[in-house]
Amino acid sequence: MNIVELIKKKREGHSLSGDEISFLVNHYTLGNIPDYQFSSLLMATYLKGMNTDETAALTNSMLNSGKIIDLTSLKGNKVDKHSTGGVGDKTSLIIAPIVASAGIYVPMISGRGLGHTGGTLDKLESIPGFRTDLSLSESMKVLEKCGVILIGQTKEIAPADKMIYALRDVTATVESIPLITASIMSKKLAEGINALVLDIKTGNGAFMKSHKDSIELANSLIGTARSFDKNVVVFITDMNQPLGNYIGNWLEVYESIQVLKGNVKNDLYTLSAKLAGAMIFLGRKAKSLQDGEQIAKKKIDTGEAFTKFLEIVEHQGGNIDYINNPEKYPKSKFKKNVKSTRSGFISELNTYQIGMASLELGAGRRKKDDIIDPKAGIIFYKKIGDKIKNEEIVCELHSDSKPKIKLAEQMVIDSIKISKKKQAIPKLIKKVIR
Amino acid sequence: MNIVELIKKKREGHSLSGDEISFLVNHYTLGNIPDYQFSSLLMATYLKGMNTDETAALTNSMLNSGKIIDLTSLKGNKVDKHSTGGVGDKTSLIIAPIVASAGIYVPMISGRGLGHTGGTLDKLESIPGFRTDLSLSESMKVLEKCGVILIGQTKEIAPADKMIYALRDVTATVESIPLITASIMSKKLAEGINALVLDIKTGNGAFMKSHKDSIELANSLIGTARSFDKNVVVFITDMNQPLGNYIGNWLEVYESIQVLKGNVKNDLYTLSAKLAGAMIFLGRKAKSLQDGEQIAKKKIDTGEAFTKFLEIVEHQGGNIDYINNPEKYPKSKFKKNVKSTRSGFISELNTYQIGMASLELGAGRRKKDDIIDPKAGIIFYKKIGDKIKNEEIVCELHSDSKPKIKLAEQMVIDSIKISKKKQAIPKLIKKVIR
Repeated sequence: MNIVELIKKKREGHSLSGDEISFLVNHYTLGNIPDYQFSSLLMATYLKGMNTDETAALTNSMLNSGKIIDLTSLKGNKVDKHSTGGVGDKTSLIIAPIVASAGIYVPMISGRGLGHTGGTLDKLESIPGFRTDLSLSESMKVLEKCGVILIGQTKEIAPADKMIYALRDVTATVESIPLITASIMSKKLAEGINALVLDIKTGNGAFMKSHKDSIELANSLIGTARSFDKNVVVFITDMNQPLGNYIGNWLEVYESIQVLKGNVKNDLYTLSAKLAGAMIFLGRKAKSLQDGEQIAKKKIDTGEAFTKFLEIVEHQGGNIDYINNPEKYPKSKFKKNVKSTRSGFISELNTYQIGMASLELGAGRRKKDDIIDPKAGIIFYKKIGDKIKNEEIVCELHSDSKPKIKLAEQMVIDSIKISKKKQAIPKLIKKVIR
Repeated sequence: MNIVELIKKKREGHSLSGDEISFLVNHYTLGNIPDYQFSSLLMATYLKGMNTDETAALTNSMLNSGKIIDLTSLKGNKVDKHSTGGVGDKTSLIIAPIVASAGIYVPMISGRGLGHTGGTLDKLESIPGFRTDLSLSESMKVLEKCGVILIGQTKEIAPADKMIYALRDVTATVESIPLITASIMSKKLAEGINALVLDIKTGNGAFMKSHKDSIELANSLIGTARSFDKNVVVFITDMNQPLGNYIGNWLEVYESIQVLKGNVKNDLYTLSAKLAGAMIFLGRKAKSLQDGEQIAKKKIDTGEAFTKFLEIVEHQGGNIDYINNPEKYPKSKFKKNVKSTRSGFISELNTYQIGMASLELGAGRRKKDDIIDPKAGIIFYKKIGDKIKNEEIVCELHSDSKPKIKLAEQMVIDSIKISKKKQAIPKLIKKVIR
C-alpha cells in the first residue's frame, strides 16, 4: 500500500478500509512509517473524521499492537470504568473497592494527570509505598486474591496508543472523537473486561466543553464497544465545577477515604454510587441501575468498601497506617485562605483555571517529567449555588512554596464568580446512555 | 510562540498573522520545528486554506529564507514566465530567446521533471555540454552578455521552499492553492524580476484538472504578485493533449528548434508567441498583448530568436553543432509505431497516461535520482480532431529498451480514443487574466 495515497484518501474525506488502517498502525508502530507522514494523516483524520467501522478498525489495530490480558481463568464478570478526566475527579478510588466488594473483578488500568486534570495513578502514589507499576503476572495474582487492581498502562498494553498519543499531543490532533475513542477503547479492551462504564465529563473543566461533543463521543464509544461485543453504560456528567471538595493527590485520597467511610455524602458520593451501581449492574450483581446504586451505597454503609480499599492498598504495597489515620499524613508548609470580597452566591467556577492553579501549587505537571508534590492542592468550602458572606472562606490553598501560592491565589480568585441572586446549580448527571 | 497553538489556530480555520507565519517558516528552516509538526500544519493548511495576506506572508518568508538576486545594475526590464507544467510543454525553450532578442532580460530559473511532466532543465541538459548549474556570479555574467539565463534553483534561492516541497511531496499536501502559490512565487520573486507571465495548464495532463481550480490558482498567484508590486498576466491553457507533437527531452529541443526556425506553426508555436508577446508587453517593448505577439512572431521570421537560442546554448557550454544540425543527434535503438485499429477521428487523449508512458520509455524519473535517457520519448502524428484511417500511424515510440517500448505501447494505446464523429478540439487558450 502507498502511504501518500492513503493519506490522500482520508484527506478527501473517504473512509479507509480495515486493512488500510491496520497497515498504517502496524507500520507506524514498527517504525516503517515516519512521524511526519503519520501526523499528516492524524490531522486529516482530525478534520475529516472517521465512521464507526473505521474507528473500530483503528481501535482493533491499536489493541492488537500489544498484549490482551486473558482473564478467562477468573470465574465471574470483569467490569471497569473510564472517565474522560476532570478536576477533583477521584471516583476510581471509591468505585473500585465498592464494586470489588460486590464480587465483581475490577482490572483497572489508569493514567497520570496531564495539564489541568489529575490522574488516578498520581493520586494512588501519594500513599507511601503504593505501587502502580505491577507487572502483568503480579497484577494477575493481586486480582485473583483481592478482586481488583489499580495499575498503570504497561509497555505490553496497546503500545501503538502510547506512540500515537505522544504524536497527537505535539501536533494539535488530541481533541478528535475517533482518535479519543480508539485511545480509550484500545486500552480498556486490553484489560480483558466484559463490560465498561464510561463517565464523559462535560463543561469548563473537561476536555469536552460542549454537550454536543460529549454526546458525539458517547455515541462513538458505544458504537466501538458494541463492535467488540462489550456492554457499556455511558454517563455524561458535569464538570463545570470540581467534583467533590478536594483537589490534589493526597487531598483527593483523603476525601475518598471520607466517602468510603460514609462520613461525606456530597456530589462525589452521589456520582460514585451511580457509576459503581452501573458497574454492579453490568457485572450482573444487580437487576437495574437503581438496584446497583443501592447496593453500592450499602457497601459503604456496611464498611465493606472501606475494608476492600485497605486491602487494595496493602496488596499494592501501600502503607495502610495513613489510610486508617489520615491525620498523620504530612501537611504542606504553607496554607492560604481565599476569601470572598462580597456577599452573594457562588455562581460560576472556571474549573479549567482551578485545575491549572492546583498544578501551579505542585499537584500537577507541565512536562512529563515534572515531579509532583503529593500534599499540594486546594480544598473548597463553597461550591456553585452556595451562599457566601463577605470575608468568608471560599477555599484553602496548600503548597510548600510561597511564590506558588501567590500565583495560584490570583488564578483562583479570577476563577470564582459571585452573584447577588442564586443561580441554577449545574445538573450533576446530564444523561445516561445505554 | 507556541507551535501547537499555531497549528490549532490553522486547524480551526483562523488566519495566521504575518509574524506567526514567518516564525513557523524560519524555525522550520532552522530545524527548530520538527517535520512531524510542520506536516500537521501543512495538512491543516491544505484543508482550511489561507487568505491572500497569509499566502503573501508565506511567500515572503520563503523568499527571504534565501538570496534575492539583485538585477538593479542591469538597465532595462526583467521578465520571466512560469508554467505549472504539462506534457510536451517546451515553451520556455522558445520564449526565452524570443523575448531576450526583443531587448528584455529573462532570468529564468526552471525545475526538473517529476512524475508525468517534463522539466526544462532536463530538456536543456539533453544538449551535450549544456550547463544549468551556473553559480549566481556566472549567471550574472551570462545575463549581462546574452540577456537571458536558463538555470536551475541554486541552494541560495528560497531554501525554505525546497525543504517544504520535499515534505509536501511525502505527506499528501502538494495540491494546495496557497502552498503552490508560495512555492512558485518565492522562487520567481528571488529572480529579481519586474513582471511575470504565468501559464496555468488545465486538463487531464495538468496538475490542475478543473477549470475552477485553475481560476482559483490564477487569482491566488495574481493576488500574491500584486502584494509584491509585480505586474502579471495569467494564461489558462489547455492540457487535454500534449503541447506540440514531440515528448521527451531531446525530442522537445528538436521541436523547439523547428519552431524557432519558423518551420512549424502548430499549437506550440501559437502558444509560445502569445506567452512571449505578453512578456514583451510587460517588459514595455509592446503597446498591447496583440502587439507583443506580432513582435514575437517577427523575431522568429527574422531568425533573431533562433540566433539568440544558439547564443544561449553557446554561453551555457552547450554544443551548438547539434542545434545547427539536429539530425546528427544520436537516435534511440528502437522505434515502434502505434497504429490505429479503426477509422474515425481522434477524440480524446489521456495526457497523464501519455506522460507516464514517456517516463516509462526513459524520458522521465520515478525517483529523484533516476537517470534520464535524453533520446527517449514519443512523436505524435495525430492530435485531437484529426481524421485517422485504420492502420494509420498515431505516434512513434523511441527507447533503447524493447521491454519498455512494449509496456509504453499498451499505455499509449489505452490513452487514445477514436470516435466516428469529429469532436470539438479543446480550446488552446482558455482565459487570459490580467
